[in-house]
Amino acid sequence: MPETLLIKTDFRRGAEWREAFAGFDVEVREWGAPGDPAEIDYALVWKPKPGALAAFPNLKIIFSIGAGIDHLLGEDVLPRGLPVVRMVERALTAGMTEYVLYHVLRFHRFMPQYEAGRREGAWREIPQTPAWRRRVGLLGLGVLGADAARALAALGFDVAGWSRGEKNIRGVASHHGARGLREMLARSEILVCLLPLTAQTENILNAETFAQLPKGAFVINAARGGHCMEEDLLAALESGHLAGAALDVFKTEPLEKSSPLWRHPRVYITPHIASMTVPATAAEHVMENIRRFRAGRELTHLADLAREY
Amino acid sequence: MPETLLIKTDFRRGAEWREAFAGFDVEVREWGAPGDPAEIDYALVWKPKPGALAAFPNLKIIFSIGAGIDHLLGEDVLPRGLPVVRMVERALTAGMTEYVLYHVLRFHRFMPQYEAGRREGAWREIPQTPAWRRRVGLLGLGVLGADAARALAALGFDVAGWSRGEKNIRGVASHHGARGLREMLARSEILVCLLPLTAQTENILNAETFAQLPKGAFVINAARGGHCMEEDLLAALESGHLAGAALDVFKTEPLEKSSPLWRHPRVYITPHIASMTVPATAAEHVMENIRRFRAGRELTHLADLAREY
Repeated sequence: MPETLLIKTDFRRGAEWREAFAGFDVEVREWGAPGDPAEIDYALVWKPKPGALAAFPNLKIIFSIGAGIDHLLGEDVLPRGLPVVRMVERALTAGMTEYVLYHVLRFHRFMPQYEAGRREGAWREIPQTPAWRRRVGLLGLGVLGADAARALAALGFDVAGWSRGEKNIRGVASHHGARGLREMLARSEILVCLLPLTAQTENILNAETFAQLPKGAFVINAARGGHCMEEDLLAALESGHLAGAALDVFKTEPLEKSSPLWRHPRVYITPHIASMTVPATAAEHVMENIRRFRAGRELTHLADLAREY
Repeated sequence: MPETLLIKTDFRRGAEWREAFAGFDVEVREWGAPGDPAEIDYALVWKPKPGALAAFPNLKIIFSIGAGIDHLLGEDVLPRGLPVVRMVERALTAGMTEYVLYHVLRFHRFMPQYEAGRREGAWREIPQTPAWRRRVGLLGLGVLGADAARALAALGFDVAGWSRGEKNIRGVASHHGARGLREMLARSEILVCLLPLTAQTENILNAETFAQLPKGAFVINAARGGHCMEEDLLAALESGHLAGAALDVFKTEPLEKSSPLWRHPRVYITPHIASMTVPATAAEHVMENIRRFRAGRELTHLADLAREY
């Protein structure tokens, strides 16, 4: 009897996930119809309810469908002692880098001003700044942050990053710790948040952080809504200290229709689409870990629950 | 007495050009105050009037301020027999690649739809297409086209290019000739024009070309207004065959306030800013050629007036 992988996803993508695993030696079961709970070996999940995973007594590995594991850290969500694997797959990484490049280029090349000019039929050239004089700062240099940093550096941007530990990425200045954060913020004309959401990083995009950025800076948040104090962001935009923001994630999702963020002329909103896990490539990552587990080898991209990512 | 370089540019950038050449052994003269015409050795120009350059009897090289030389090809603009050097400098190339990446990413990631959704506060995810399933076609694989093609290929896009002769660029399918054009158009979900403007390429973005693109394709023109039949483009957008366009150049510049392009919801307009020559880096290119000329060596990026680029 083949081992089983239980998948909790929205119904629309169920077929795509089934197809992604079709060629592999694992039987896919859907969350709503798991069959005998004792038969479930692995689970690939997004936001399971507290206690739900405990119903499967023989679970061996829990896979997160998203890059972050913050959706698994609520009380009683994770059964004790099971390995949790983060989602790292090339389409998810590439999609995030696309999103970051798009918004960095948009701010770097003054596109919001050209868009405003278009509405009045204005023909006005804004002097161009070469990429090597544009300082971009990345909060987070994990798999996603490092990939975006490399792509920005390849385009010639002056890139720095901040992370918990020191990183060594060619062409990217590495900062860490509280002092490193201050240094990086002071230089970042465009700040990009790609951090995991943890007790340490929650609300890191706040009034104090914004105040440390140079006047006229831009902020891009493609990580989690929990990173950003939305009121502080609006205030920094209103005061003119920040020139604009691009937000993909929010404290409440979907973002409430009444949120002033929707209508703010200098805020670009997308509905949590910066990057999505693609079943075809994600299945390779899951199967690679299942094979490693079967062979008694170390898993890849194992989450560290103590540090919350 | 040092040799002299006459620069024809707009007044605002005059000081920047002077500064760019400050460290080099050439004396900069401004177009409006050239001094003794017989003392002018080199000219760096944008759109000189017919006959104007003939006033300088000892001119040795004409440098174009822009990448294209179409602005020099009118009757009696160029004195006979003088070498004409195209502008090739890293800031100009990098700026064009930024512009192309920005617009390709915008269409690739459905940003126009998210922008429209934002106006109504809509929270709707559009399934993501991985870059390797997104087919981008470049018209023109010269210095600018090749750089943009490489950057797109590095992001994983499925890139093809079309040029007069066959090109060999890693990760980029090369097409040439009339048949090659048909093949490339048929596959291009996003078409980018970076061709030089010549008798052969004038109006290449026309109804017949658009009809060969797949339904729902996007067109980006960052080359010259002379490449695009604007009426044909509007018709292809109206019929729904084309899904959108990004235009930086127009038949008449500045684009007339009355142009329907300004107000078309699926046309993104910028005022000929896709890339600008940056004096600091351009001066290096000009001086490299002046040094080569002095040493009797071959010039770089010499225009071929017979082929018009």
